[in-house]
Amino acid sequence: MSEQKSKEKKIKIESNEKSKLKSKLTELRQDLVTGDWVVIATSRAKRPEDFARQKRKEIEESTEHQCYFCYPEETGQEKDVLIYQDSYKEWTLRVFPNKYPAFIRGKRVKHFEEGPYFGMDGVGYHEIVVTRDHQKQIANLEVLAVMEIIDAYQDRYISLMNRKSVNYIEIFHNHGQEAGASINHPHSQIMAIPVISPYVQLELKGAENYHKNNKYCVYCAIIKWEQESRQRIIFENDDFLVFCPYASRAAFEVWVIPKKHQPYFERMGKKEKFQLAEALQIAIKKIYTALGDPAYNFYLHTAPCDGRDYPHFHWHIEILPRTSIWAGFELSTGIEISTIEPEVAAQYLKNIED
Amino acid sequence: MSEQKSKEKKIKIESNEKSKLKSKLTELRQDLVTGDWVVIATSRAKRPEDFARQKRKEIEESTEHQCYFCYPEETGQEKDVLIYQDSYKEWTLRVFPNKYPAFIRGKRVKHFEEGPYFGMDGVGYHEIVVTRDHQKQIANLEVLAVMEIIDAYQDRYISLMNRKSVNYIEIFHNHGQEAGASINHPHSQIMAIPVISPYVQLELKGAENYHKNNKYCVYCAIIKWEQESRQRIIFENDDFLVFCPYASRAAFEVWVIPKKHQPYFERMGKKEKFQLAEALQIAIKKIYTALGDPAYNFYLHTAPCDGRDYPHFHWHIEILPRTSIWAGFELSTGIEISTIEPEVAAQYLKNIED
Repeated sequence: MSEQKSKEKKIKIESNEKSKLKSKLTELRQDLVTGDWVVIATSRAKRPEDFARQKRKEIEESTEHQCYFCYPEETGQEKDVLIYQDSYKEWTLRVFPNKYPAFIRGKRVKHFEEGPYFGMDGVGYHEIVVTRDHQKQIANLEVLAVMEIIDAYQDRYISLMNRKSVNYIEIFHNHGQEAGASINHPHSQIMAIPVISPYVQLELKGAENYHKNNKYCVYCAIIKWEQESRQRIIFENDDFLVFCPYASRAAFEVWVIPKKHQPYFERMGKKEKFQLAEALQIAIKKIYTALGDPAYNFYLHTAPCDGRDYPHFHWHIEILPRTSIWAGFELSTGIEISTIEPEVAAQYLKNIED
Repeated sequence: MSEQKSKEKKIKIESNEKSKLKSKLTELRQDLVTGDWVVIATSRAKRPEDFARQKRKEIEESTEHQCYFCYPEETGQEKDVLIYQDSYKEWTLRVFPNKYPAFIRGKRVKHFEEGPYFGMDGVGYHEIVVTRDHQKQIANLEVLAVMEIIDAYQDRYISLMNRKSVNYIEIFHNHGQEAGASINHPHSQIMAIPVISPYVQLELKGAENYHKNNKYCVYCAIIKWEQESRQRIIFENDDFLVFCPYASRAAFEVWVIPKKHQPYFERMGKKEKFQLAEALQIAIKKIYTALGDPAYNFYLHTAPCDGRDYPHFHWHIEILPRTSIWAGFELSTGIEISTIEPEVAAQYLKNIED
């Protein structure tokens, strides 16, 4: 009896601690040397002990047999911000805020200082895009179901892009544990954030410079050359090119890019969305078949929504299979080592039956 | 008999293929948009089939019970370039070229073009630093044994830094499979490369700018503030400060930095090397104890050896425990998410007994 009581009390304390943790904002902190940002997501905070190898394994295993995303209401997920239904009024896709967001809704971004350092509140939005079937990953979905995912990306993008303190929206998908997916149920994530990502900034600057020197979009130049040389193309349809990039960051990296110049993902029309769904599904299916259902990430790079124009950018999707682990050299230098030529990888993927 | 023959023939063909692959230089390819480099290490090339999930597992398992580094001669490693012995003439540490180098010795770097793209031969040096005891990782070594490792780093650095086509030398250590260590025997790696790493370039530029604006080294400013605020320091001795950086890229990230301003790792004296060995060993031991022998990488950031002066840089070592997996958001944006405040991590590490 007294054991029961003490157990109850413990649970209460833990939930108090949790809500205390949750009420804290997450922080964006700037590296004083490089200017890059990191997120200290205290809303997801664990105790220091929870980072120990054994403890992490226990936590992983304890969540193995539950699925939060099959029954979002029953497992206490946040309220949907978007829901698609089929003709029987059954949901097929839904979008809801992440219960443990890396960025938290707030009216305005507060900046702060600590000694020589700068930071700001991690204000923004962090949403989950869930397709219904627990078993069906994108590789095995119908094209129309993939198009629903693209529709949801675009719907949410348009809804979030003009909100206060949103300057960039990152849409991405993690598949498999080695790619950082902590929940098996297929899902994508959308993060609307107050800063423009360093990698996209690099691409924006590169595109700007290339245009200044060549009066031409750098991505259009890449597309033109890939179509001429045909060494690295694995699929194309009317509107999209699917290829392994010349300077692949990982073995079997694949890009999906619109053939016509277009900086803004959110302006894509219905026909293009269908074509994108087809191209993306085929790319992922080929990777799935060739590499035996590997873990992978894909993510969208599109022009920022900070109110400025980016006429020389060209949106695209990058797919990174996690076929190797980035080790000390890659983490230290930012130079990735890949052990297969993109031309060989592309030829192999091209010959895989869809 | 005929089966035997065909088997032999097959082996011959395979070894021919291997030597053909090995004779090809590795390539550095430049991302046309960002200017960043990747390495296509064809000397380590695998067949496309070998990247499949199941195949990768088989390859890993097949090498599990061999140790190339306990008996480098017997397992056909390259000839030593450096060897340290104890008073019984037994080797304690040796350095030899990597049998499957990401960069390959060559007289000069040849540049090439393909359509709009640029690349160059992956000319350079790739060496392995091996301590003798298979079981003893750095966390469990005596300080003097760690000093031998530092000595070897510096010896090899000085030997390689003035060679043709070497502009940057990256020294790093991978521990554990999740950190990309493919061989269990404790070892570090040295890569002498023709390009300056993008991350170090960012740091060089940041240090330069900070000095222009503040007439002060940015790393010295960090050290000064950390010593004043004492929130993130976990250890210090005469010459080195060990702390969790304000903008940590991962939970429990730790930096080891010389307190006095010094751009060049290779100029460190004997006393400082001992102090560094102590600081590094204690930092790693604390991480080992706190996180239950986690996988980690550490790497050196020092001024390039391209013949130019970098008076405003300040060399340091970064230790990154692999407590979480960088997923789509991190890979896409370059913004890392950490789920513990560096202040909390530092306090926890500080209180761990050495």
